[in-house]
Amino acid sequence: MTTDIKAALRAQAIETPSWAYANSGTRFKVFAQPGVPRDPFEKLADAAQVHAFTGVAPSVALHIPWDRVDDYAALAGHAADLGVRIGAINSNVFQDDDYRLGSVTNPDPRVRRKATDHLLECVDIMDATGSGTLKLWFSDGTNYPGQDDIRARQDRLAEALREVYDRLGDGQRFLLEYKLFEPAFYTTDVPDWGTAYAHCLELGPKAQVVVDTGHHAPGTNIEFIVAFLLRQGRLGGFDFNSRFYADDDLMVGAADPFQLFRIMFEVVRGGGYGPHVAFMLDQCHNLEPKIAGQIRSVMNVQEATAKALLVDRDALAAAQAAGDVLGANAVLMDAYSTDVRPLLAELRAEMGLDPDPMAAYARSGYFEKVCAERVGGTQAGWGA
Amino acid sequence: MTTDIKAALRAQAIETPSWAYANSGTRFKVFAQPGVPRDPFEKLADAAQVHAFTGVAPSVALHIPWDRVDDYAALAGHAADLGVRIGAINSNVFQDDDYRLGSVTNPDPRVRRKATDHLLECVDIMDATGSGTLKLWFSDGTNYPGQDDIRARQDRLAEALREVYDRLGDGQRFLLEYKLFEPAFYTTDVPDWGTAYAHCLELGPKAQVVVDTGHHAPGTNIEFIVAFLLRQGRLGGFDFNSRFYADDDLMVGAADPFQLFRIMFEVVRGGGYGPHVAFMLDQCHNLEPKIAGQIRSVMNVQEATAKALLVDRDALAAAQAAGDVLGANAVLMDAYSTDVRPLLAELRAEMGLDPDPMAAYARSGYFEKVCAERVGGTQAGWGA
Amino acid sequence: MTTDIKAALRAQAIETPSWAYANSGTRFKVFAQPGVPRDPFEKLADAAQVHAFTGVAPSVALHIPWDRVDDYAALAGHAADLGVRIGAINSNVFQDDDYRLGSVTNPDPRVRRKATDHLLECVDIMDATGSGTLKLWFSDGTNYPGQDDIRARQDRLAEALREVYDRLGDGQRFLLEYKLFEPAFYTTDVPDWGTAYAHCLELGPKAQVVVDTGHHAPGTNIEFIVAFLLRQGRLGGFDFNSRFYADDDLMVGAADPFQLFRIMFEVVRGGGYGPHVAFMLDQCHNLEPKIAGQIRSVMNVQEATAKALLVDRDALAAAQAAGDVLGANAVLMDAYSTDVRPLLAELRAEMGLDPDPMAAYARSGYFEKVCAERVGGTQAGWGA
Amino acid sequence: MTTDIKAALRAQAIETPSWAYANSGTRFKVFAQPGVPRDPFEKLADAAQVHAFTGVAPSVALHIPWDRVDDYAALAGHAADLGVRIGAINSNVFQDDDYRLGSVTNPDPRVRRKATDHLLECVDIMDATGSGTLKLWFSDGTNYPGQDDIRARQDRLAEALREVYDRLGDGQRFLLEYKLFEPAFYTTDVPDWGTAYAHCLELGPKAQVVVDTGHHAPGTNIEFIVAFLLRQGRLGGFDFNSRFYADDDLMVGAADPFQLFRIMFEVVRGGGYGPHVAFMLDQCHNLEPKIAGQIRSVMNVQEATAKALLVDRDALAAAQAAGDVLGANAVLMDAYSTDVRPLLAELRAEMGLDPDPMAAYARSGYFEKVCAERVGGTQAGWGA
Repeated sequence: MTTDIKAALRAQAIETPSWAYANSGTRFKVFAQPGVPRDPFEKLADAAQVHAFTGVAPSVALHIPWDRVDDYAALAGHAADLGVRIGAINSNVFQDDDYRLGSVTNPDPRVRRKATDHLLECVDIMDATGSGTLKLWFSDGTNYPGQDDIRARQDRLAEALREVYDRLGDGQRFLLEYKLFEPAFYTTDVPDWGTAYAHCLELGPKAQVVVDTGHHAPGTNIEFIVAFLLRQGRLGGFDFNSRFYADDDLMVGAADPFQLFRIMFEVVRGGGYGPHVAFMLDQCHNLEPKIAGQIRSVMNVQEATAKALLVDRDALAAAQAAGDVLGANAVLMDAYSTDVRPLLAELRAEMGLDPDPMAAYARSGYFEKVCAERVGGTQAGWGA
Repeated sequence: MTTDIKAALRAQAIETPSWAYANSGTRFKVFAQPGVPRDPFEKLADAAQVHAFTGVAPSVALHIPWDRVDDYAALAGHAADLGVRIGAINSNVFQDDDYRLGSVTNPDPRVRRKATDHLLECVDIMDATGSGTLKLWFSDGTNYPGQDDIRARQDRLAEALREVYDRLGDGQRFLLEYKLFEPAFYTTDVPDWGTAYAHCLELGPKAQVVVDTGHHAPGTNIEFIVAFLLRQGRLGGFDFNSRFYADDDLMVGAADPFQLFRIMFEVVRGGGYGPHVAFMLDQCHNLEPKIAGQIRSVMNVQEATAKALLVDRDALAAAQAAGDVLGANAVLMDAYSTDVRPLLAELRAEMGLDPDPMAAYARSGYFEKVCAERVGGTQAGWGA
Repeated sequence: MTTDIKAALRAQAIETPSWAYANSGTRFKVFAQPGVPRDPFEKLADAAQVHAFTGVAPSVALHIPWDRVDDYAALAGHAADLGVRIGAINSNVFQDDDYRLGSVTNPDPRVRRKATDHLLECVDIMDATGSGTLKLWFSDGTNYPGQDDIRARQDRLAEALREVYDRLGDGQRFLLEYKLFEPAFYTTDVPDWGTAYAHCLELGPKAQVVVDTGHHAPGTNIEFIVAFLLRQGRLGGFDFNSRFYADDDLMVGAADPFQLFRIMFEVVRGGGYGPHVAFMLDQCHNLEPKIAGQIRSVMNVQEATAKALLVDRDALAAAQAAGDVLGANAVLMDAYSTDVRPLLAELRAEMGLDPDPMAAYARSGYFEKVCAERVGGTQAGWGA
Repeated sequence: MTTDIKAALRAQAIETPSWAYANSGTRFKVFAQPGVPRDPFEKLADAAQVHAFTGVAPSVALHIPWDRVDDYAALAGHAADLGVRIGAINSNVFQDDDYRLGSVTNPDPRVRRKATDHLLECVDIMDATGSGTLKLWFSDGTNYPGQDDIRARQDRLAEALREVYDRLGDGQRFLLEYKLFEPAFYTTDVPDWGTAYAHCLELGPKAQVVVDTGHHAPGTNIEFIVAFLLRQGRLGGFDFNSRFYADDDLMVGAADPFQLFRIMFEVVRGGGYGPHVAFMLDQCHNLEPKIAGQIRSVMNVQEATAKALLVDRDALAAAQAAGDVLGANAVLMDAYSTDVRPLLAELRAEMGLDPDPMAAYARSGYFEKVCAERVGGTQAGWGA
């Protein structure tokens, strides 16, 4: 069994986001950090470090326009040179002054056109970089009751999604992200998985739902959503992070490691452990160093995955069938209570990696090197 | 315009639930009240009072087995004699010892069979009473991670729903209710509108979603769900009540009258103001007198409806199209800030009713009469 | 270090509540279980099993009037015979019809007098049983805005607390419990720790706050409250249980074991690990068997405690002082990720216990025995 | 009675914040608006407009360092020339790079000294401007378990507060603000009213609690806190705004006007309607125009106040004493359901104001004037 688990863990791919290496913060303050990249090429270099030390972070998500470059083929080539590849293309229709009242759901048709054109440009970038996945998150919504027509905004959304969907090529898909609130504070146009699912269903199989673990109302059972979407064949992937309150974007596994384990267990149980369900990180390292924060996060996902794979599913099924509440719960908890760090250390050694990625990265001197080298220029951030 | 609004208000039908007239409480205590009905016939008599004084509560929902009688035709006839009619039939698969681990999603096929048979029996009762609506709420779920297989429970649920759906006759439909939690404390098998919607969509047009206003996670925007379900043609009706915390089941409009107004506005705007969207109350009068509590609740829905009908939709649409955030909000708030009680008093006078239903009911002596008459026997409650 | 940790764990005392052995449920249904005690003596017998197999559950909380007996000295003697002792006395002023609108905060002075007299009776029972702790939880509150005067209810509460406080003897204290909501659905008279703390401060050192882990608003950081109350010298103890949604009363550690660990760490760090801070369980085993559920819960607290004791506090302090966010977090997580079950198994063996309490209890045949013996009579429940 | 109510409303003073006139936004985007002030003098000019049209907004809160000027006496004189005065001084210890890990609770004593010095500087500014109130909000907290010592941070907080408290002159006080979360995402050092209250109590009567209506956990009953703090003599004032989700900072009264009414009723009932409890706005007009947004907000507070003053308190007390749940609720709702806009229009006419402040401001041409005049320079925002 350990052999199977190791094989499964070795095959895991956790995508890190280019923007995690850039400065980020809250509305109150962005604390700049030393050594932060100044362009997409430097972001890829940092992401490559995460893969180098963990062995399971082979791709990097881009955010357009933050990662806009003149030559995407060159960017993809740069990634390949670094041992990684371009992952999902994330569209951004929330940072232009035109989008004050929405992007694809804006009451003004001119703004909608502009927003949809940006989404289509992102598909062009997918073509240019070989990316198979477009991630769509809309900050669209309203702040006040009456501000706009809830239903008309759905019609506008459906129209834009249709146009983008029809533009997708073979082997391409889009993932529609939902979020309860922020930056919109009264309505959000895709506030929950049901809304995203309903739109995807009307569009076709290339439209799938992506679950950002920080985007739910308090008390929402995320693993239920995971299990349900897998049953319906519509789970496209995850934006992992963690939260105690709202969309806090902390390191995945930092706030509720047991929840992460339950989510990963439903992924495994539902047949979602494979290339079609993307494991992506979407986090903000506001206080902690960014590369190290990503390494730690990748390891947290690995640990939760290892525990999920350890669950004795035969014993679990037997206890469930027998209505043995305590027994079934105990089977699950046995896996969760196991310390999987030795197993992962062993796996890393077998993969030719240092068993302790955090320590190895610290020793590598990479951070000191980029701090020294990356002087001048403008540090990348959410706005650039 | 006032004439149109009055006509719309006069045509409104708000269904009261038979169980609102019976004793109810919390897990800590059920405080029995004087004059409470002892059987379904007495419950109908109380419900008829609510209609007599408000003029807009012409039907009464039944709960089976709480309202099980030998002769449903007689019960329907009794209702007609009282000036009301039988409304939705509510199934109950949560109060038998067999349902400890679930009803239609129970791991034990014998229990599932029993539960589904109960649902089919409810359709028989619909036939016997002339009811067109079956309301399905399942308390099914689990309390502990691992207790049962989340996905297998969905398969079992789908199977039961299909069997019931196929049993529905012409002019019959079922409404699937969702609820975040309680009495299940880890997973609930139909926890949100998305789950209910997905099942209904697979079943066909006779399956629709019912929105209980108390069944959402904190922060959920209910009027968004209402607008969305109306757009998809799947809003079957409401179970109205209000809450500050969880499923508190307080009188509708008592906790957040502005939310109720916003919900009613989306109903009106979305074309849901008509017989196909059922307005039902589902409340617990744990502390306050029950008949008076229902009258007050019906009036609260009326007031919210009147305000929703008062919204100047042309002015609203113009402000929305212009991106005038404050102006659009002001149009909505103008209607909400209006005191509609004089309008409703006028309407009641025109309908031959007392303009003040609460005072008229108090003067009627009905409560004193039933307190005196209903001695002996067993008071109806949630368990009977 | 392991020696110290073992010594600390050996000295731990986790109190189980008499009512956990009785039937419980939700407002929807109480599912009766076989073998449930019919009187306080049988409850003590069940509690003694939990201590027999875990070695760290030496006391049993009583709930008055549920555990009212004619001869409390006899009950205490019975406990001693079974190897346990009487713990906290829990007052109950929520199950009499008089308490519909409150107990000590009721607008009616007659009811307030009755409620306060009950609290004084509980101090008498403390005298008779040798209990040093009175636990006060009030379900008092209102369901509707305007129903009663928020401030006047505080005055009434203060008056009753003062009378009870003054009745306490040497070596006696009371713990004031707070709860956000339920069964009151608009205001609760002691809704949060701040309210409880303010009252205790005005009363004196024998009044302390008890933290029920299920009684907070979503998102509340419980370990912060623990740390703060310890700093102020007012943390009297815990009512442990766990929740995903509201006051779900699930087995402690079942919903968020990481939170339980963080709480226990603050207890240890704040000097609260000792006899003055009481570790009590307050749970409902609605679906699972009750004695086994308590054993499991006691073990969950033990595991969280063991992990909390394992934290390398010197390394933690050093990382904190250095502002090393990831490093400090890693020190804490290292302890949490450790599998402490082998350590606890070893400890149990040293204590002359079976290393696996769940299995040993199952093998003991106790459950089968009480199922066979306890026929006839009325099973104990929340109402008796 | 109407005369008394009008007199009370005429005497009301609602303070607007200088930063409400500047650009604001979310972490995703700040949408700049035309005509926004470029310095504190222009902010005061905008604030004076709000007072000119409403008659009840005579003071303006400053935020230091955002409103730092060389000559505070000149700024105060400028305010007087405009017909307003300087209100509360708001300290800001969250926007310097040094404050990444906290200000007065930072593990580094150098940073703590710097932060405390800033607070003391704010008292100097109070002296210079004649302000009697210092508002203290700390963004201090941690993002990860273990990041810092929860209790040590309280000790550091207490030390800084003591130093500032001792610096206060006669007729000066400080208001301590609490907030559940954001920008700190694991612990916040002053997360709830209980923490603020406990610190104030230890300091003395010049330290009071300020309630920001957006800073609570979901489900928190804010009017309870208001009533409780008034009873304890520790309610210093409000930061008004409204929210559907987290600290959304929408216009007060926009999300839940009934809650605002309930809060104002407790203020009136508890004797807090007077100069010692400050009514301040603390909002972000991210989408809507700022001056108009403030006028609307002031009017919303006025309307809630008028309704609160309209409550028939004798009838309410009688119904409460009689335990008449529905009757007592109805007394409150009667006041809330009243349309107070005619009364307020009348009052404004009597005060020599236009009865419709929004329309009058729109007609005044002020907005067009500042849009034309305020070109060049740097618009004020949260960061400056």
